[in-house]
Amino acid sequence: MHLKSTYRLENDQNEHVFGPGRFRILELIRELGSMNKAAQQLGMSYRGLWSRIRLTEKRLGFPLVMTESGRGTQLTPEGEDLLKKYSVLRSRCQAADDAVYQEIFGDHPIPGI
Amino acid sequence: MHLKSTYRLENDQNEHVFGPGRFRILELIRELGSMNKAAQQLGMSYRGLWSRIRLTEKRLGFPLVMTESGRGTQLTPEGEDLLKKYSVLRSRCQAADDAVYQEIFGDHPIPGI
Repeated sequence: MHLKSTYRLENDQNEHVFGPGRFRILELIRELGSMNKAAQQLGMSYRGLWSRIRLTEKRLGFPLVMTESGRGTQLTPEGEDLLKKYSVLRSRCQAADDAVYQEIFGDHPIPGI
Repeated sequence: MHLKSTYRLENDQNEHVFGPGRFRILELIRELGSMNKAAQQLGMSYRGLWSRIRLTEKRLGFPLVMTESGRGTQLTPEGEDLLKKYSVLRSRCQAADDAVYQEIFGDHPIPGI
């Protein structure tokens, strides 16, 4: 058995702002330089991907992606910053949480697990 | 903005074993002494609640609840143990994760948040 944690950022109205799904979207846009290709790779519609990004941008108050003619779509500096911070957050939380899990469930496992 | 984490226990096949939903189910069964009342309070069908418990029991390999004639439904000692351990896990992980969040997002917030 192991711990599977999910980390989401919410605004003060407890609305979803950013999590693993949008992290993956931004990662792919950065990698592929295209929202269309990112959507295809995720098996999502362009519209679905775009609406998620727009909602997060709206809730954050700044743009995450920018599209320039001939250069495709790139992350804005704020988008890059969010991607990096979330990645660090997730890694560090996972390490901390796994240690907690081991302390509680590792030494004295529930019988049968 | 704040961090909203979810903690789930999975088996070695990455199948769901226990998380916030089943935690709440066990809490209510303990409180109400009845799976029917717990299901009502959660707006779930008895069948839906029961199938979730059974699946978790199957994946753990031991029973979480026991029903005795005239005494309603109670948690087994293993069910109590799981409830308690998960509760401690969640509290401690939340504290650790919130500290990580503050370090990363607290001092240098993303503009606009």
